[in-house]
Amino acid sequence: MTWTISERAQKLTSSAIRDLLKVTERPEVISFAGGIPTPRSFPVDHMRAACDRVLSQDAHAALQYGPTEGYTPLRVWIADALSKHGTRIDPERVLITTGSQQGLDLLGKVLLDKGSSALVETPTYLGALQALKLSEPHFQPVPCDEEGPVLEGLAPLQLTAARMLYCIPNFQNPTGRRMTFARRCALLALAKAANFPIIEDDPYGALSYAGDEVPSIFSQDPEAVVYLGSFSKVLAPGLRVGYLVAPKALFPKLVQAKQAADLHTPSLNQRVIFEAVQGGFLDQHIPRIRALYAEQCRVMVDALQRELPEWVQYDTPEGGMFIWLRLPAGNDATPLLAHALQANVAFVPGATFFAEQPQTNTLRLSFSTPTPERMYEGARRLGGLIRQHCHPDERV
Amino acid sequence: MTWTISERAQKLTSSAIRDLLKVTERPEVISFAGGIPTPRSFPVDHMRAACDRVLSQDAHAALQYGPTEGYTPLRVWIADALSKHGTRIDPERVLITTGSQQGLDLLGKVLLDKGSSALVETPTYLGALQALKLSEPHFQPVPCDEEGPVLEGLAPLQLTAARMLYCIPNFQNPTGRRMTFARRCALLALAKAANFPIIEDDPYGALSYAGDEVPSIFSQDPEAVVYLGSFSKVLAPGLRVGYLVAPKALFPKLVQAKQAADLHTPSLNQRVIFEAVQGGFLDQHIPRIRALYAEQCRVMVDALQRELPEWVQYDTPEGGMFIWLRLPAGNDATPLLAHALQANVAFVPGATFFAEQPQTNTLRLSFSTPTPERMYEGARRLGGLIRQHCHPDERV
Repeated sequence: MTWTISERAQKLTSSAIRDLLKVTERPEVISFAGGIPTPRSFPVDHMRAACDRVLSQDAHAALQYGPTEGYTPLRVWIADALSKHGTRIDPERVLITTGSQQGLDLLGKVLLDKGSSALVETPTYLGALQALKLSEPHFQPVPCDEEGPVLEGLAPLQLTAARMLYCIPNFQNPTGRRMTFARRCALLALAKAANFPIIEDDPYGALSYAGDEVPSIFSQDPEAVVYLGSFSKVLAPGLRVGYLVAPKALFPKLVQAKQAADLHTPSLNQRVIFEAVQGGFLDQHIPRIRALYAEQCRVMVDALQRELPEWVQYDTPEGGMFIWLRLPAGNDATPLLAHALQANVAFVPGATFFAEQPQTNTLRLSFSTPTPERMYEGARRLGGLIRQHCHPDERV
Repeated sequence: MTWTISERAQKLTSSAIRDLLKVTERPEVISFAGGIPTPRSFPVDHMRAACDRVLSQDAHAALQYGPTEGYTPLRVWIADALSKHGTRIDPERVLITTGSQQGLDLLGKVLLDKGSSALVETPTYLGALQALKLSEPHFQPVPCDEEGPVLEGLAPLQLTAARMLYCIPNFQNPTGRRMTFARRCALLALAKAANFPIIEDDPYGALSYAGDEVPSIFSQDPEAVVYLGSFSKVLAPGLRVGYLVAPKALFPKLVQAKQAADLHTPSLNQRVIFEAVQGGFLDQHIPRIRALYAEQCRVMVDALQRELPEWVQYDTPEGGMFIWLRLPAGNDATPLLAHALQANVAFVPGATFFAEQPQTNTLRLSFSTPTPERMYEGARRLGGLIRQHCHPDERV
């Protein structure tokens, strides 16, 4: 059979990371390619107890269909947690999603027509590009500096044409960068002036282990921002429970899109998450996770400092799980990966994270899961390969 | 803020059923409006034990991200179960979805462009119309008789223009109709000749309690059909685990669309379902569910026979949870619902299930959950209201 595939599906490509991860499953490969939380951060016994309580006390509801918006007590808990940062958040604006990835799918459907302009950071989260791409927008990459996106770099028409700005202010995937408060405020002011919503994706916000925490853009004006949150990094990603908080103007359409997408997020999982966060559990658990990631980061940076040539640039992250390496211009990380895989070490070439005009001299390292020994050994191999295959001078 | 909403989202409307269900939550309302399984069919202790085994033996994987295609042992189990009906099914063609509703969203994305023709039954499942609508197709309703859709009623151009035919051959929502084997074969031959895939949605197939089971269209040619299955009616809908089995020509694109939609279906839930079906559990459990629904159906039909005027038409279902009432032409079930709600009895007006040209003289009754007493009392009230507000003669 040779059926007609939709235009949008023809444009879909398999994720480079996804294909790479199949290779890195081999135990001999030291992988800095993944972006998954360390299983050591999963509160296994606590989750099992939560699950058992739900299925002992509330089984019929946990096993039955539920409302599209989500389990009310969990929505209230999320609104209360977000309200601690300032503005009072209405639980009626919280929509539980099947992972925060689903929020991106819903927002593409509700905000983007074919050819609509979507502003994205340079570089940005690959999964967001994939989700939004199904609505066939025109991606408008926003130039970024060390503080975050520089909207002033865009022409006035590029701003007024935009239907949304998608950004990850905390410990961005892939760069690990935390956007400054000044830049957050500037983005908000410009977005309001040009009349488009900011989509603030915040999966890593809780994983802050150095420097001061910075208020979310959302906390500055919940009517101008759609906030995407997740329990994947603070409890467990395998439950696929995330949420979005949306302004009144968008909420009903997002609920309708959610209903069409999967009716609702699993009733059981929402209740297990709610049980798991009772009694202030995250107040004890998040510091433990932060300590884990802080130590992973410390070892990784130490390994890179020892093993990489000095002409490879990177910043020390203050949170999250990523380090972004910049080789001198004119180098290309994609052929470097081929050599790296032969040496049983893996990373993600940075080119895959650009909506347009990829900077091929970049690469993303994730340090969430390897042991210290493997981080040192992986950095040693990587340093050797870079010295062997890359040139230390800029060649544009 | 008054942001621009996408054209497709502007066309979205809240589900009439969804809004209605909020009213019918009041305990004094006897509701035939829902379409949810009876919680008496949920194997609660069995599910709790399955969940505990998963979190005792395989917690780290159950709480971690997983592959987009799904948990391999569950995919193999599904392929084996489907292979019992004839053709050998390859587990590599099974994609686990977040409920079979998600399969509809993915199929719309992969098969439909704006304006593409999608053939649907008359009437059909409202949730399918909602999911596919987000891809902005042109719905082409196919006339149906008591055996199923009559593709011969369409012009040749209408057939060759079609990108898909969506149908529910077993105990259709909303009509309760089971498509005959001859009609299934005729559809398959016509779809292959006109070169479009059949989307066979089969959530109710296991709930067969009278008459002979009929082979799926999929079993006759797995390369010409996308089959959608679900554990919602045989185990529990609250876990949101469904699946699709797709021909080679579509599978990779469906996986890419799934990855963009929610990365993967919850790892925990897939493992709990897999644990729950071990040891032939469904071979014992499905007969119990069938007996439950058979008895609910027997009581409902008896109640309708006693209480409805003879000029209201309906067929006795052989499976599933729906009865489709047809009032004489010229009557309208929507104002009847307003009277019914005042009398604390609810149903769904049939008009909502039509892609175009609604037959307003129809209504859907679900008999899955009410007690016998409430079915008799509900039918009594409904019969009285029909006598009071509807006319017994056809007035076109």
